[in-house]
Amino acid sequence: MTIAAALAELETLLGKGLSRSKSDLDTHGASESWFAPAPPDAVAYPASTDDVSRIMAICHRHGCPVIGFGAGTSLEGHTSAINGGLCVDFRDMASVVQVNPEDMDCAVQPGITREALNIALRDTGLFFPVDPGANASLGGMASTRASGTTAVRYGTMRDNVLGLEVVLADGRVIRTGTRARKSSAGYDLTGLFVGAEGTLGLITELMLKLHGQPEAISSAVCAFPAMGPAVDAVIETIQTGIPMARIEFVDAATAKAFNSFAGVDFPAAPHLMIEFHGSARGVEDDAAAFGEIAQGHGATGFRWSVKPEERNALWKMRHNAYYACLALRPGAGGVVTDICVPISKLAEAVEETAADIAASELMGPILGHVGDGNFHAILLVDKSDATEIETAKALSSRMAERALRMGGTVTGEHGIGMGKLGYMSAEHGEAWSVMGDIKRALDPSGILNPGKLVRQG
Amino acid sequence: MTIAAALAELETLLGKGLSRSKSDLDTHGASESWFAPAPPDAVAYPASTDDVSRIMAICHRHGCPVIGFGAGTSLEGHTSAINGGLCVDFRDMASVVQVNPEDMDCAVQPGITREALNIALRDTGLFFPVDPGANASLGGMASTRASGTTAVRYGTMRDNVLGLEVVLADGRVIRTGTRARKSSAGYDLTGLFVGAEGTLGLITELMLKLHGQPEAISSAVCAFPAMGPAVDAVIETIQTGIPMARIEFVDAATAKAFNSFAGVDFPAAPHLMIEFHGSARGVEDDAAAFGEIAQGHGATGFRWSVKPEERNALWKMRHNAYYACLALRPGAGGVVTDICVPISKLAEAVEETAADIAASELMGPILGHVGDGNFHAILLVDKSDATEIETAKALSSRMAERALRMGGTVTGEHGIGMGKLGYMSAEHGEAWSVMGDIKRALDPSGILNPGKLVRQG
Repeated sequence: MTIAAALAELETLLGKGLSRSKSDLDTHGASESWFAPAPPDAVAYPASTDDVSRIMAICHRHGCPVIGFGAGTSLEGHTSAINGGLCVDFRDMASVVQVNPEDMDCAVQPGITREALNIALRDTGLFFPVDPGANASLGGMASTRASGTTAVRYGTMRDNVLGLEVVLADGRVIRTGTRARKSSAGYDLTGLFVGAEGTLGLITELMLKLHGQPEAISSAVCAFPAMGPAVDAVIETIQTGIPMARIEFVDAATAKAFNSFAGVDFPAAPHLMIEFHGSARGVEDDAAAFGEIAQGHGATGFRWSVKPEERNALWKMRHNAYYACLALRPGAGGVVTDICVPISKLAEAVEETAADIAASELMGPILGHVGDGNFHAILLVDKSDATEIETAKALSSRMAERALRMGGTVTGEHGIGMGKLGYMSAEHGEAWSVMGDIKRALDPSGILNPGKLVRQG
Repeated sequence: MTIAAALAELETLLGKGLSRSKSDLDTHGASESWFAPAPPDAVAYPASTDDVSRIMAICHRHGCPVIGFGAGTSLEGHTSAINGGLCVDFRDMASVVQVNPEDMDCAVQPGITREALNIALRDTGLFFPVDPGANASLGGMASTRASGTTAVRYGTMRDNVLGLEVVLADGRVIRTGTRARKSSAGYDLTGLFVGAEGTLGLITELMLKLHGQPEAISSAVCAFPAMGPAVDAVIETIQTGIPMARIEFVDAATAKAFNSFAGVDFPAAPHLMIEFHGSARGVEDDAAAFGEIAQGHGATGFRWSVKPEERNALWKMRHNAYYACLALRPGAGGVVTDICVPISKLAEAVEETAADIAASELMGPILGHVGDGNFHAILLVDKSDATEIETAKALSSRMAERALRMGGTVTGEHGIGMGKLGYMSAEHGEAWSVMGDIKRALDPSGILNPGKLVRQG
């Protein structure tokens, strides 16, 4: 057996750093979404790039599949070991390697989570802004090209990774990018590995852009009569050049979920949640300008949060929206969808989606990152009920088709994994074949996260 | 002859759209830099993507080299037809295809220049910000990952291209990206073709991000006692989060060149030229905050330009710096260098470079984009004097080595072409081989811009 032969060698190399315990395999084969468990044959806990390089060289020689693993928060079955093989868990490679305050960058190992990184940065006056909600690992966030609530201001992982250290399929170690802010020196390999979902190599170090902690922050929430005017308000705000640090929308169902879960008293209407970062006077000006625009589009019930504890409560509520929505149907599981459209199509896309969900037997609150045109429906299902799962998949599928029809993408920030493989041809056409060409050039024997992102076989 | 056979077929396909006139060949084989002329065997002027696809299919079948051509303003021999073959000039594909004001994006053909695009956008309230100085074509700017004076605020071409239509080596047409602002749907092919210098495909359409024309603009210039304090002022400004739209430095030699070329009276000292974009009150605040920081680092002689004509004069002077510098030595040609380092190393890099130039027999004013850590020396040479050319090459080479030693890149914005090929191995190590793997996967017969960016043969 190729896998067995690889594992025997890996055991010699790693000793206790290789686990075959059932609980470990089960944990690493589980999924946050609807995918059936697919445990690996073993889990490696490397301590260094050198370990990872030796692991890859062994697996390459034996044709053993290798799946990178961070915090396990991905949503599209990215870490499922569908062909078995080795899961490489970066738990023990989670350090901050260096921080360069003058250059506003840092180097980290892939296993560090975004919360741990920001705690480590607290006294530097800097922070790492990308915030997908979950306390994901930076390696995982890079691999799925994660974004979240702050992308409208600070960009996605694509924009905030300056460079990478990557172990290739055969164990070679490369560095992409430099510490310079920009470069025209050849193909953008950093950009190629960000979003590659571990199918082209394993990220063993990331050089990240940092941003200055804002001097002042101001947050608010307000209600709108409908999605259309809420989106129009955001479009006008963006066009006016008012810099929003976050601009989130939640639909009436989510507002109701907040009421029962977080003890607030929102009207049952679509809401925008907004945040400004800047100087004290700057955020005041921005907030006033936004308020005027929003009122022009029918916004009411403004609640401003200037104090840190009020702000934290607001965004904690937003980050817990998933759990708040789950609580609308006790015992239910969530199937989280994710599409992104041009902002001019956002209201239409949300309204069509809401109507589609209303016509089904499922509940599905909708919320998202309105500044990017990206939104999610949280479909509440009884995960043991095959019919409900099928209904959820069908709703998700129609959302993907809707996104493509409107000039958008089938995933704004969750990635392809296995869950969105079926739409790749529709979204990319012949360009998907080009992705396959690149995959085969960098991983000819197909051992890196098989069955994800590219066409099989 | 493979090229001859291809040209015979192309003549049938294109008729008058294929030129073999000597003047045309000479124009397209010339270079802005020190490279010997290398004319193609013919120049094609396609009118559509379909034309380009047929051209590529023919050239692919015959193994005929193909070199894309925009405005001919590249600086590293990017368009030299060193193996002969066909130059594809996008002069007749220079339209704005669509503008979507609500989504702040547009689609353009590759031959349109940035000035023509911004004239077309004038009444929309939007503009395309990337500004490399030269009136380059958008296809060329994407292919070299161009940037320039506004990158500190608006990013480079990497950040402002949402998607592309590309004709592959065999004539297949693909689309990368969508009109959504972000996506996690597979490998970032858009990012791969941006900066690929025409070695992976020919860009036939670009989807670009647009930005709102600022309500107010304020520009200024001030002098510093030395480079160190000027860079420190910029670092402090960035860390404070004051949004600069442009922040340029020129050394004392360039300031003197401005005096004689543009009729100004700058002191013979390093200067910063800065611009703020925003609301009227916003730019006033930003300017005041910057002024305070700059004065804290010894800045003097502030000259503010709020009126459009004053501002235009200031930036016209900056854009004409190349010609102002050339005029310091009548009859001289310029060899323009380009490196980018972490900003914490910028003062040291500029000072070492200035000392190195001072120790040579050449003049070489230095100027650059201080917010990005990117700078150029304009080496003034007698292009008929081989010794001077060699001295310039040696200075440029030591700059590249300096950039790498300081954690930077051998080119911030001009690209590799032929001029920087010799440093690719030093900058990228084994990652350069990965670029070669990708090149071979997408262009197995090596017909796309041979001899540029990747290792030969």
